Parts: sequence; C-alpha cells; structure tokens
Amino acid sequence: MTSEKINILDKFGKLPAGDYAVGVIAKMNDYEFKIVKFKGDFLWHSHPDTDETFIIMEGTLVMNFRDRKVEVHAGEMIVIPKGVEHKPSSENGYKALLIEPEGVPNTGDVQNEITIAKVEWV
Amino acid sequence: MTSEKINILDKFGKLPAGDYAVGVIAKMNDYEFKIVKFKGDFLWHSHPDTDETFIIMEGTLVMNFRDRKVEVHAGEMIVIPKGVEHKPSSENGYKALLIEPEGVPNTGDVQNEITIAKVEWV
Repeated sequence: MTSEKINILDKFGKLPAGDYAVGVIAKMNDYEFKIVKFKGDFLWHSHPDTDETFIIMEGTLVMNFRDRKVEVHAGEMIVIPKGVEHKPSSENGYKALLIEPEGVPNTGDVQNEITIAKVEWV
Repeated sequence: MTSEKINILDKFGKLPAGDYAVGVIAKMNDYEFKIVKFKGDFLWHSHPDTDETFIIMEGTLVMNFRDRKVEVHAGEMIVIPKGVEHKPSSENGYKALLIEPEGVPNTGDVQNEITIAKVEWV
C-alpha cells in the first residue's frame, strides 16, 4: 500500500492488446480497483457474495439484466447488487474502473475459458 | 440497493452551495460512494480503521502528508492508507468521488465544528 497518485486512463496503456483485459491498479482495505477494457458480449453470470461497481471511463457499457438493460456512458457508474444476473456487452468497446473485493472471479458463478484465475497488477 | 446508473458529475448539482459539501450517491456492500466538493484548507486527521480513496472528477486536490504533498488532478486517484495523517487542500476547489466504509467520519480521529455526524444521500 502506498499513497501515490494513479492516473486511471494512463494505466490502460499497460494492458495487453485485445478486446478484453483486466488489471489491478490499487487496493483499499480488502477491495481492489481494477481497470477493464471490453468489446463484445460477455456471459451471463452473478456474484453470489458481493456487489460490484463499474465506473465508465470511456465508451458505453450496455449492462443487460434479465428484465431490462441499462446503457452506462463515460462519467456514469452502476452498482450490480449481489446475486443479480447480468451480462455486460459493448458494440464499440468501453473502458471502466471496476471495484469489488479482492479475489472476486470475473465470471462470477460460472467457470469457463474466459475465467481469469488471478488478475495481475498493472 | 438498485442497479440504476448514476451520473457522477450531475450529482454535484444536488449539493448545497458553499466551499465544502458531501453527499452519498451509492452503496456497495458496506461501502459508500460519496461526492465531495472542497475549496480551502481541511484539517490534519487520519482514519485509524480504514483506507480511504479519492477519485478526482474536476480541479486539483493537494493531499498533504507530514513528509510531502501530492497534487491529484482530474482523472487521477489516490488511496490514503489507514492511520496515515493527511490534510486535503485546494486553492481553486476540487470535486471528487470518495470511497470508504459506511459511517467513516470526515474528520477521522479529530472531532470539531466541521465534523459531519451523518452524510445524507443526494
């Protein structure tokens, strides 16, 4: 833990190329701040033990719920309640700051080929 | 808890006029997202039980530590570690998103006339 400042958008330059990447940029107590970039259709999943927060930095995240969808633009945030099924998607891609407890799996209750075992610091 | 999106900058319009105001805009588990606007010199304090995160939305926060100071600009964030003395200041004012556990007092270990007993939702 340090108290250095972090430029959020600059950190995206540290992520690998591609439509999906995640990296940890800061820790607060047992919570992590992660940057995520994503383009495409993610999978339906939920996080049975925790809420999860997205703060959109660039682009638009379409957050699909079973009964509706919410378009979240740069400068907006959304908290996904614990246990609620959701499917992020984005036609043109988005960059977001993701806040959740350390160790929460990206695919929640689902495990498949895009599940990330451990998100690295960038 | 809902899963509505929140426009962070728009929420500042709900704060009362003046150089210092704080409002809660979202909750994630037992953490709160607060908006804060501040201009001037805050007081030296620390939070003995928790880290605290500032994400700067507009302007510049000068975060003073006992041995140095850090200028945090819009688009940057800083995590103040638990127990570390700090004094926020800003000549021209800043707007920030503040993330910390519910109920953490704004003046930390110090109690005086600017201590806010309970931060209201906006």
